[in-house]
Amino acid sequence: MAKVHNFSAGPCILPHEVLHKASQSVIELDGTGLSLIEMSHRSKEFVAIMERARELVKELLGVPDNYSVLFLQGGASLGFYMAAANFMKNEGGKAAYLDTGTWSTGAIKEAKLLGEVITLASGKDVNYTKIPKNYTVPSGMDYLHFTSNNTIFGTQFKSFPKSDAPLICDMSSDIFSKKINVADFDLIYAGAQKNMGPAGTTVYIVNRDKLGKTGRAIPSMLDLALQHEKESMYNTPPVFAIYVSMLTLEWLKSIGGISEIEKRNEAKAKLLYDEIDRNPLFKGTTAVEDRSLMNPTFVLTEESAGHEEKFDKMWKAAGVSGISGHRSVGGYRASMYNALPIESVKVLVDVMKELEKNA
Amino acid sequence: MAKVHNFSAGPCILPHEVLHKASQSVIELDGTGLSLIEMSHRSKEFVAIMERARELVKELLGVPDNYSVLFLQGGASLGFYMAAANFMKNEGGKAAYLDTGTWSTGAIKEAKLLGEVITLASGKDVNYTKIPKNYTVPSGMDYLHFTSNNTIFGTQFKSFPKSDAPLICDMSSDIFSKKINVADFDLIYAGAQKNMGPAGTTVYIVNRDKLGKTGRAIPSMLDLALQHEKESMYNTPPVFAIYVSMLTLEWLKSIGGISEIEKRNEAKAKLLYDEIDRNPLFKGTTAVEDRSLMNPTFVLTEESAGHEEKFDKMWKAAGVSGISGHRSVGGYRASMYNALPIESVKVLVDVMKELEKNA
Repeated sequence: MAKVHNFSAGPCILPHEVLHKASQSVIELDGTGLSLIEMSHRSKEFVAIMERARELVKELLGVPDNYSVLFLQGGASLGFYMAAANFMKNEGGKAAYLDTGTWSTGAIKEAKLLGEVITLASGKDVNYTKIPKNYTVPSGMDYLHFTSNNTIFGTQFKSFPKSDAPLICDMSSDIFSKKINVADFDLIYAGAQKNMGPAGTTVYIVNRDKLGKTGRAIPSMLDLALQHEKESMYNTPPVFAIYVSMLTLEWLKSIGGISEIEKRNEAKAKLLYDEIDRNPLFKGTTAVEDRSLMNPTFVLTEESAGHEEKFDKMWKAAGVSGISGHRSVGGYRASMYNALPIESVKVLVDVMKELEKNA
Repeated sequence: MAKVHNFSAGPCILPHEVLHKASQSVIELDGTGLSLIEMSHRSKEFVAIMERARELVKELLGVPDNYSVLFLQGGASLGFYMAAANFMKNEGGKAAYLDTGTWSTGAIKEAKLLGEVITLASGKDVNYTKIPKNYTVPSGMDYLHFTSNNTIFGTQFKSFPKSDAPLICDMSSDIFSKKINVADFDLIYAGAQKNMGPAGTTVYIVNRDKLGKTGRAIPSMLDLALQHEKESMYNTPPVFAIYVSMLTLEWLKSIGGISEIEKRNEAKAKLLYDEIDRNPLFKGTTAVEDRSLMNPTFVLTEESAGHEEKFDKMWKAAGVSGISGHRSVGGYRASMYNALPIESVKVLVDVMKELEKNA
């Protein structure tokens, strides 16, 4: 097939060997005579897959023993509600949020169904091009919630908020991309479809010691303590998405784990941002210090007015795919998740240089 | 690979051609140069897949125009809560339930979080071996809820309850197995992993005219009216599970649709139940009139005491897989979903005859 340089913002590129193995297992899983997707989730084969996926998360991120790793459904958007349902007190609940764009706003909307939300700081007045840095966390908060990386606006927290209250992070778009200290958080949740696997499962990494303290009756499927007790199998789990996540995490381990991928991600981001800054036809759209390593966003400068059509033709001709900006903001966004090779970034950068020559 | 006769209760057997096509698409979807699972859910390719899946449900089941078909996440267990959240009045909510076993009990548990539950009738005192038939639906109910087929106990409604209140059905394990009149229901929901596809998506077929009447603020991901408005894409949908469901529904249409599969399912069930009734070594575990066509359950009779080990060896040697009863009830359960060929049932029946000869 034609070589495609896949900069899709998610679902996104996965390692070639993962796709190959997943494809085989849809026909037959490891000599069992059965397809992965037509066997019981209680089979010893699938129970081992679930266990392996859990172990890999623990090993790759150094998850403390008193934390649980769960593979659930619903994406981060259901996570917005689940975070609040599991951490916001039932009576007089009050939580602090940092608003860094669309996903934070979504999280705030769901939390308001369950208690009082205090938005400590917001990047809204600068169209979310900066991560807010000056705020204090009031005492008496049930938790502090933030979004570590903002796929739409292309910003990313470079250091994490500190808080006496439990710290909750929607890490959907940069989990497994760089070293983190899990013990700094009480709940991390992330949709799989960036660095972990295909769409269809959501990982929860939760400090068990902080669960069961809200006085709230939580729907079974959304209850993290119950899902821990049932080992993520209160009901039939999303078998395929968990399996492919397990394969992707195996791949990550095989190439050297988080420290290696962090280096690769930094090198890819440097290559692209250096070109954005050097090339007079382009400029970045966010504060330099808050630039996302996962989702660089950029636009054509005034100098390159009228070149948009030409640029679009050129990158498409080079096999680049998925760099149109999010439908809500326009411009360009080159998402560079873990599985994207630096060679693809070089192809994009070459197209940018080529546009400059021909402009 | 070895021929396996897959009687798994779910996730369960899928058509061979579906597995083959799904396997290919994990490598590359229809000449796009991209894997199905690494492309944007907003791509024209995936939007067309979602639309096609929706159309097939409408066409196969004859869904009225004022109903929406949604592909969501969470399985029927999240559906238990969603049914109540979308239909139970916020103030003074009251709903009627029929209790026919584990899944009904689960649905009742979730509904109690949101209002009063009136259990009209229960099969509990006969260990759920019968479908309750004598009950009256009180007036003033927000809805009547039942489970059409009970996978664990092997019973199935042969005619559906009548009610002035909206009728809600968890149809996870027999949807698409036989003709139904969708207009008789206001909400049908069903986990995909029996007759529709792999685990990871749940179909909702809902009468739009009945939504938005509870006065309740519903979490976004659980709000059927919002999911309708967003065409099941409030967030990233479970791409693979929806795609494979679409393929499975295409297959169902290609073989002649619901009327053809209903005939096949009746023939398979007759073959196995006739043997259960004829063979002195076996007996069925449920009331004859309530026998499930999807999940026949049976045990060895006293006459065959001590033959269990022999029988287990024999069916395993014949390539039969997945007929051990649910861990909560024991015995045998031969699940015969749409994609199971009658040849597999013949193999099982032959083993039962063989046991009789050698006993």
